[in-house]
Amino acid sequence: MVIVIKPGTSQEEIDLLKGRIQKLGIQVHEVKREVQSILGLIGDTRKIDPDTIQADKRVEKIVHIQEPFKKANKLFKQEETVIDVSGNKIGGKHFAVIAGPCSVESTEQIISIAKDVKAAGARFLRGGAFKPRTSPYSFQGLREEGLDMLLEARAATGLPIVTEIMSPHHIELFEKHVDVIQVGARNMQNFELLKELGATTKPILLKRGLSSTIEELIMSAEYIMASGNEKVILCERGIRTFEQFTRNTLDLSAIPAIKKLSHLPVIVDPSHAAGHHWMVEPLSKAAVAVGADGLMIEVHNDPANAKCDGPQSLKPEKFQRLMEILKQLVKIEGKEM
Amino acid sequence: MVIVIKPGTSQEEIDLLKGRIQKLGIQVHEVKREVQSILGLIGDTRKIDPDTIQADKRVEKIVHIQEPFKKANKLFKQEETVIDVSGNKIGGKHFAVIAGPCSVESTEQIISIAKDVKAAGARFLRGGAFKPRTSPYSFQGLREEGLDMLLEARAATGLPIVTEIMSPHHIELFEKHVDVIQVGARNMQNFELLKELGATTKPILLKRGLSSTIEELIMSAEYIMASGNEKVILCERGIRTFEQFTRNTLDLSAIPAIKKLSHLPVIVDPSHAAGHHWMVEPLSKAAVAVGADGLMIEVHNDPANAKCDGPQSLKPEKFQRLMEILKQLVKIEGKEM
Amino acid sequence: MVIVIKPGTSQEEIDLLKGRIQKLGIQVHEVKREVQSILGLIGDTRKIDPDTIQADKRVEKIVHIQEPFKKANKLFKQEETVIDVSGNKIGGKHFAVIAGPCSVESTEQIISIAKDVKAAGARFLRGGAFKPRTSPYSFQGLREEGLDMLLEARAATGLPIVTEIMSPHHIELFEKHVDVIQVGARNMQNFELLKELGATTKPILLKRGLSSTIEELIMSAEYIMASGNEKVILCERGIRTFEQFTRNTLDLSAIPAIKKLSHLPVIVDPSHAAGHHWMVEPLSKAAVAVGADGLMIEVHNDPANAKCDGPQSLKPEKFQRLMEILKQLVKIEGKEM
Amino acid sequence: MVIVIKPGTSQEEIDLLKGRIQKLGIQVHEVKREVQSILGLIGDTRKIDPDTIQADKRVEKIVHIQEPFKKANKLFKQEETVIDVSGNKIGGKHFAVIAGPCSVESTEQIISIAKDVKAAGARFLRGGAFKPRTSPYSFQGLREEGLDMLLEARAATGLPIVTEIMSPHHIELFEKHVDVIQVGARNMQNFELLKELGATTKPILLKRGLSSTIEELIMSAEYIMASGNEKVILCERGIRTFEQFTRNTLDLSAIPAIKKLSHLPVIVDPSHAAGHHWMVEPLSKAAVAVGADGLMIEVHNDPANAKCDGPQSLKPEKFQRLMEILKQLVKIEGKEM
Repeated sequence: MVIVIKPGTSQEEIDLLKGRIQKLGIQVHEVKREVQSILGLIGDTRKIDPDTIQADKRVEKIVHIQEPFKKANKLFKQEETVIDVSGNKIGGKHFAVIAGPCSVESTEQIISIAKDVKAAGARFLRGGAFKPRTSPYSFQGLREEGLDMLLEARAATGLPIVTEIMSPHHIELFEKHVDVIQVGARNMQNFELLKELGATTKPILLKRGLSSTIEELIMSAEYIMASGNEKVILCERGIRTFEQFTRNTLDLSAIPAIKKLSHLPVIVDPSHAAGHHWMVEPLSKAAVAVGADGLMIEVHNDPANAKCDGPQSLKPEKFQRLMEILKQLVKIEGKEM
Repeated sequence: MVIVIKPGTSQEEIDLLKGRIQKLGIQVHEVKREVQSILGLIGDTRKIDPDTIQADKRVEKIVHIQEPFKKANKLFKQEETVIDVSGNKIGGKHFAVIAGPCSVESTEQIISIAKDVKAAGARFLRGGAFKPRTSPYSFQGLREEGLDMLLEARAATGLPIVTEIMSPHHIELFEKHVDVIQVGARNMQNFELLKELGATTKPILLKRGLSSTIEELIMSAEYIMASGNEKVILCERGIRTFEQFTRNTLDLSAIPAIKKLSHLPVIVDPSHAAGHHWMVEPLSKAAVAVGADGLMIEVHNDPANAKCDGPQSLKPEKFQRLMEILKQLVKIEGKEM
Repeated sequence: MVIVIKPGTSQEEIDLLKGRIQKLGIQVHEVKREVQSILGLIGDTRKIDPDTIQADKRVEKIVHIQEPFKKANKLFKQEETVIDVSGNKIGGKHFAVIAGPCSVESTEQIISIAKDVKAAGARFLRGGAFKPRTSPYSFQGLREEGLDMLLEARAATGLPIVTEIMSPHHIELFEKHVDVIQVGARNMQNFELLKELGATTKPILLKRGLSSTIEELIMSAEYIMASGNEKVILCERGIRTFEQFTRNTLDLSAIPAIKKLSHLPVIVDPSHAAGHHWMVEPLSKAAVAVGADGLMIEVHNDPANAKCDGPQSLKPEKFQRLMEILKQLVKIEGKEM
Repeated sequence: MVIVIKPGTSQEEIDLLKGRIQKLGIQVHEVKREVQSILGLIGDTRKIDPDTIQADKRVEKIVHIQEPFKKANKLFKQEETVIDVSGNKIGGKHFAVIAGPCSVESTEQIISIAKDVKAAGARFLRGGAFKPRTSPYSFQGLREEGLDMLLEARAATGLPIVTEIMSPHHIELFEKHVDVIQVGARNMQNFELLKELGATTKPILLKRGLSSTIEELIMSAEYIMASGNEKVILCERGIRTFEQFTRNTLDLSAIPAIKKLSHLPVIVDPSHAAGHHWMVEPLSKAAVAVGADGLMIEVHNDPANAKCDGPQSLKPEKFQRLMEILKQLVKIEGKEM
């Protein structure tokens, strides 16, 4: 941490501030400059609350030198984390596709789609039981009943299931039945939920919030990891910008950025990002090429009658053709799927 | 709702789509244009899931004519809603200031600040017990203990207390003790929490999410109202943009926009928006002038040692002077505080 | 400037970098930290191109301590700049309103509006002759002919005229006839134009670009000032965000920010920001309250037939009533208009 | 165009509005709905200025059904445009790489780089002579002298040159010497410049503005095309968002979007978007995979001493290795480079 002193602060005042920081066991190194001095801090500056320093009347601004995350930081763990769910792996050399409908609608529907996506090469089945919807008047998901249907689809295909949790009330239920627990974009900074998920044993798929920075996404992973669960998969799904042609702006540069900062696996959800089914193919290919560890793709056997997100869902045949193309690109990347 | 048909769709196909919609009890009126027809829908189009229509292969796009909210809509309730907490009112002619520290730190601190802000004219005491923090390593609030301190401050001053809820696990506790339950920006679309708050009897202070549109903010209020609790106060607290000088960009034009769209009261939080204590005064004045129903201001007796948000907190003397200025402006607006 | 060294860089390498910088006459002060050292630079670091340093393989990142502008910087000129156009002042204690139509349409129109806005208390007449339009098929302004009409309106009322320049080809024409030369948001970083305007003697009204930071706006003023013309008026007119209810998001917090950073006067254009005529009144009041030095307001005698921006124009009667309200608020701010 | 009428407007008023529009030779079709009627307009609605209609007191809002561009619109020209510069093609099946330094620094530098990038497979040489810089104190390019050096590099290698124009004063010079004239992001809406470029015969490389929508980018191309020059190449180079890790957020979804809307070729500039040289490889690969027609890549033989943009420049050896990888991916896309 570097502290920039306000211009015109007396040396006496600067010394008082230095004393205050040294009391915390931090060494302070002053660089005297013409207009304003700066203080370089040496030691575990995590003990210092930057807000407290910033509020000091002698301080103009604070500059952070290191990222604020530890457990998720590549600096402290070079090796890439691989998440293994009954042999289905994500991370490192393992590229995995998670596919399925936006929401579970019936046992027949989910089993049919599960069989299709498995045949095409998907390693996980996604499907929403509890659905976050902007309007209270929209379909809210089949909830517990939908979860039961997912379990039937898993029994029928062997695919591990990925589904979203929306309330701490359901932690026990999800811990018991779900293979990968998804945290949606709107709950990325639901810190109480993150802490409780940190106490479970299941891998967590953490989606980036609509206006969250890459650093904040990793900090939310850090919440889960600091609470004891280090199995976190990050997911880029588009951020909110002024552009309105696409539902969100998919930030593919986040993938190499995260790979630089963290050892956690990171996947891409092109369906939610674009909001147009015809964009899923080019964006999926780009995600592989940019270095993602996997994809999360919406597949529906009858998009025009889907209860949600029909416009961005692929039909099973289209998904199968896409998987053929992706296999070739994944191989070029030196990975396997 | 207006449906724009894809160019080149045959009349036969258009008729099939019209039939599909008419089955829902909606009248469909076709306007034939050279390149592409459009369909005007007449009737309660809330029965239609726009996603389902959008996914239809004959549909290019959908245009919404009316706002998707009902209970919060000014079209259906012209009169402005006034929230009354033991005689302290917000809305209509009643301008109210909510003041207090970012977080409750000790009984002495909160009682001292409570007395100061009451003396200056604040009508509500704010103070965080459960704190949403980006880092798991930052101070997380005194939690239940902090809530007890707030109750002592209320007992000492008579000021109703406003504090943030972060988990459905605390609904019962808050329903019993808290006067106004705050939903933070990061939980604005925590829909399960909103639904549970809709089942309580306490007024809800709902903050706008960092990347939420005005319409989405009102839709989140609609969630609470549709679940039975119509006492919602909206709060503009800055949105996330590319500008980095301020913590967030305070969107003051949201105030007249919300006043046009909804009957709910709306207040402004200049402290969180700006992140600089010296901006609180000009932004507070602007908030009054633009038509807000109240303000939420951070006040701390020792900002340099505050456990959070010191940089944006006012000292009590400064707050008192600000209140004197605001009184004059509130009067010009034809309101009372 | 502070340079953060990459973790793992050897002391020998660090010394080479230090030598490279010292050759430029800059003192370098090294702060050795566990994970990575930092270098504090002392002297006129403006000699250093930060890009060059950033590209050095030993450098992780660079941190700027001071703002990159000099002539516009409040640090070097405490006193607020007042722009005086034949006795009509903007800045310091002088609040000024610039009013008129989006575009000049006829001699009668512009003279009629000029008389109305003068009677209401405006000190400057605005009117577009050269119009920047998103579509090549939209009305592009009456150009030279429109400029002539503005001159007639000035002759009839004595109001100085403010109009936008769009090409260096017109510099001579504008220098000769126009009182305040406006640079539109889309040309804020048209650096060649800025340099040429720096060689004129007329005050420049510089609008903030749609995605420009406050610092970039001041840097564009610095371009004009560095080329010799220190008469620059800044204008906040809304930035582009995800919010779509308003045309742009008016960033009123930019006003106190600019007042902190620079001595230049800054005004607000609520008409372009909001895009709705009914928002002009509340936003104008807020602009006064937040500390702006003036306003730029669109007034049209027949908005429904205006050739552009009718939706956001006020009728003269409405403008007159607004001016009455503003006078009261300006007085409270200790200013005169 | 669809016009939504304000609730409560009398039929008589609606009829007056209909009459007003019909006078323009447009058919109006009214759809009467309970709360508010809508008008569907049939005919060439480009005759109507939407602002004028929007300002009508009876109008709530206007909805556009078709894109506002004609010459750039895929609806009216299905076949993809191919730009051919002395046999070097961009568009359709032809993938082309434009490479070179941010700015031309010396004859030796530019010839050396030109030879390197040609050997690696680049088809065009880029290099800045006139440089847009945020600060007036930064290196502004070698200007006319730099252009001469580019011509020498072209003579030495045969590579057509691409360089940026910043002022209409240079049109003649560029028309005479430059092979592809680049319009930078900051000049994308410099409409007077666009019109003048429309009168030249050279291909124009048009970069997307930092806060420009996809539609606005195409509208700026339309300006050039409407003025007579249909040889326009679009370029995605990142937009401005709240994310600060990357210099800009590269919007790769813009590529399939533009391919859907327009027949013009579109390339990607990963260097400026990311601002980090180590991101150029993954983003270039992603650009190929997402369907771009080419890439624009910064290459410098000595990044640490580059006069600008060193941090994002590749060394020639690295560029060559990247080209090998790209060739493979381009082939998979069914294109040639």
